[in-house]
Amino acid sequence: MANETSNDNITTSVLPGFMELTPKDQMAFDKMKDIIADTYKKFGFISIDTPAIERSEVLLAKAGGETEKQIYRFNKGENDLSLRFDLTIPLARYVSEHQQDLVFPFRRSQIAKVYRGERPQKGRFREFYQCDIDIIGRDSLSLMNDAEIPSIIYSLFSKLNFGPFVIKINNRKIINGLLESLGVANLSVDIMRTIDKTDKIGKDEVSKVLLEVGVPEKVLPEIFGFLEITGTNEEILSSLKNLGVKNEIFDLGVAELGEVVKNIKLFGVPDKNFKIDLSIARGLDYYTGTVYETTLIDYPQVGSVCSGGRFDNLAEKYTDKKFPGVGISIGLTRLFAQLKEAGIIEGDSATPTKVLVVPMIEDMTIPFSIASALRDNNIPTEVYFDDVKAKVKLAYANKLEIPFVILIGEDEVSADKYTLKDMISGEQSLLSMEEVVERLKIH
Amino acid sequence: MANETSNDNITTSVLPGFMELTPKDQMAFDKMKDIIADTYKKFGFISIDTPAIERSEVLLAKAGGETEKQIYRFNKGENDLSLRFDLTIPLARYVSEHQQDLVFPFRRSQIAKVYRGERPQKGRFREFYQCDIDIIGRDSLSLMNDAEIPSIIYSLFSKLNFGPFVIKINNRKIINGLLESLGVANLSVDIMRTIDKTDKIGKDEVSKVLLEVGVPEKVLPEIFGFLEITGTNEEILSSLKNLGVKNEIFDLGVAELGEVVKNIKLFGVPDKNFKIDLSIARGLDYYTGTVYETTLIDYPQVGSVCSGGRFDNLAEKYTDKKFPGVGISIGLTRLFAQLKEAGIIEGDSATPTKVLVVPMIEDMTIPFSIASALRDNNIPTEVYFDDVKAKVKLAYANKLEIPFVILIGEDEVSADKYTLKDMISGEQSLLSMEEVVERLKIH
Repeated sequence: MANETSNDNITTSVLPGFMELTPKDQMAFDKMKDIIADTYKKFGFISIDTPAIERSEVLLAKAGGETEKQIYRFNKGENDLSLRFDLTIPLARYVSEHQQDLVFPFRRSQIAKVYRGERPQKGRFREFYQCDIDIIGRDSLSLMNDAEIPSIIYSLFSKLNFGPFVIKINNRKIINGLLESLGVANLSVDIMRTIDKTDKIGKDEVSKVLLEVGVPEKVLPEIFGFLEITGTNEEILSSLKNLGVKNEIFDLGVAELGEVVKNIKLFGVPDKNFKIDLSIARGLDYYTGTVYETTLIDYPQVGSVCSGGRFDNLAEKYTDKKFPGVGISIGLTRLFAQLKEAGIIEGDSATPTKVLVVPMIEDMTIPFSIASALRDNNIPTEVYFDDVKAKVKLAYANKLEIPFVILIGEDEVSADKYTLKDMISGEQSLLSMEEVVERLKIH
Repeated sequence: MANETSNDNITTSVLPGFMELTPKDQMAFDKMKDIIADTYKKFGFISIDTPAIERSEVLLAKAGGETEKQIYRFNKGENDLSLRFDLTIPLARYVSEHQQDLVFPFRRSQIAKVYRGERPQKGRFREFYQCDIDIIGRDSLSLMNDAEIPSIIYSLFSKLNFGPFVIKINNRKIINGLLESLGVANLSVDIMRTIDKTDKIGKDEVSKVLLEVGVPEKVLPEIFGFLEITGTNEEILSSLKNLGVKNEIFDLGVAELGEVVKNIKLFGVPDKNFKIDLSIARGLDYYTGTVYETTLIDYPQVGSVCSGGRFDNLAEKYTDKKFPGVGISIGLTRLFAQLKEAGIIEGDSATPTKVLVVPMIEDMTIPFSIASALRDNNIPTEVYFDDVKAKVKLAYANKLEIPFVILIGEDEVSADKYTLKDMISGEQSLLSMEEVVERLKIH
């Protein structure tokens, strides 16, 4: 990646924090992206597209200090513009703007690049793909949607095939209610950001940070007692009910979590693929109910590969109407980089081409009609044009890992039979044009 | 589009010059984009992805004054950054940077957004999709590639189905040679930019502009005599040969054009879909040989819908290596806007969902397993969860134009037969789960 070729001193490497892939890796990346897009589509999500450039006032309406520092912001004419740093704020604006034209519940997907001018560091990108789905209701949205989301995650990660995974589920009302009952509700944002890191930094460090932000030492045992509840989903729900917390929000959270867990089963997600985890709270403070994280069992270092949750009011900064929603996001660029580092991303080839037609004659009529027939059958096909030795042509197919080559010489044209070579096994067959198409359609 | 809903005075409309579509239009847009991507793939082009943000020095290495004014440029930390304004310069940088990792001829496609801060006007966008393919050789590239490009355009616009179209072909060496023979080669950039507009502004205006830029009046008849050559492709080639121009570049251009035209036929493009047009010269001065424009016969006001050409040296600003290439670009955002205005874009529905499963019972086991079976057969399916009247559920399907609804009530569950309703014909059938899947697979 670092072989900078330059002329007039112009650097051609990409900027730090940006990902640019060579063809074989790009093919592997696109395969992941296609599986995600295809799964979202099969669950009836409408793919929308919003501008990458937004008014700064729209993007910063809800943002805090860190976001403001990271944002790419600039002026053009009289406009104060910024590049989007997520897809949720553009969705909120879109729903506000187009609410008359939308049908609710509005199931929308968006797979697009977002921008954050962070200090470049391992696993952090300044330009990266987010792959989001959200289900947005008008005024209300059935809790059944919270149960459907894990079934989509299940379907998706089964197809992505990165080994066993578990979808962790929690409900923020539970901890909000608990904190309220402990008299520390005013510190809830700090507390939840901190306990969200328990897996990463450990209990001692979490205690230290909690004391620093002003949590009284006497309530720490109750917070940790709560966090240490384990067992099966049924055991956890039962422990929560027996905790003796007298708080309505807490009770509502436990009831919602119970209902969601019951319905996830109905949606066909196997028990081993989802579990209640009271330690996950999702740092972002706009989640108000169900929250999700997804971890790959064999690659715990990757962290959550698919996270999200329920929010009461998507677009409160832009409209007085109430739009509750539930959704998830996958940070695809980071996920790809980490799985590649873990060695489980292997591209199949450096081109979509499945067949290279290699003419060894002047007249291109036959080569072109074979290529055309293959393409009509949805088989990506190239004809090698350059007048070079057959060895060079086959080397081209080999380097790109094109699986099949069709050799067409004088003898083949006279006999109306063509040599199909399987580049992996080396096997060659002499076939008619129709037989070639039939044989390759099966692959 | 202009119904601005606001709170705290935040405008939720998109910025002027940006396109944002509601779901039904977005579906129609994506259908066009998918046909383009699919065609490029079938011809073996590798889809690559480069950052939207580049170093300003990279983007501006070759740019002129107009581009520099339009570019979105900003600083972040110590970096002088800009948003790409086309996909060709990023390709040049990519090829320079990754030349060791690429196999040549390198067939690359890129479908992505580019940015130009132009004064907003009808048909001009500040953010728009370009859909590009280029074939890049190392040191040399066979002229056969110049003939393959029109066969790709032909395949693509046949599938896009916007009525009859014609691919216009020329070779810049012909006019370059002619101008050299007339002693006005030094004015060639101005002359070609001007005559490229003959269709739009007419001959008188072209004459006026040519005189203004310093073309001697005495050579105008020869320029127009040349531009007015018409006839079949064979007649034009023959007229060019008989023009008596004594210039090697001219002769080479005529020979190349003849060769390309002969091979386009071989590639199976019907005569009515391509023709030599000596008036097209493509404004951009980096084309050095074959040039293309494509016009829709029924929509001349749209102008060229797919343009491109041959360039001798793609990456000369970044590397000493020589990379000749040939390619085309489609400005999809503008094309979509204009065809929509012409009334020929009609979305089919506002969702990818083909089947809405409508449970009229509490137990979701059967509804979910039917939805799951349909999705396993690649049929996008939704289940309607909210506990509302059946009328509201059917209204949801109607508004989104979902073609099929499956009604599941107590009776259906007991009989293990479900009501499939065709929402267009209104026809209802009572079918088993397997029959439902079979029936819908055919659609």
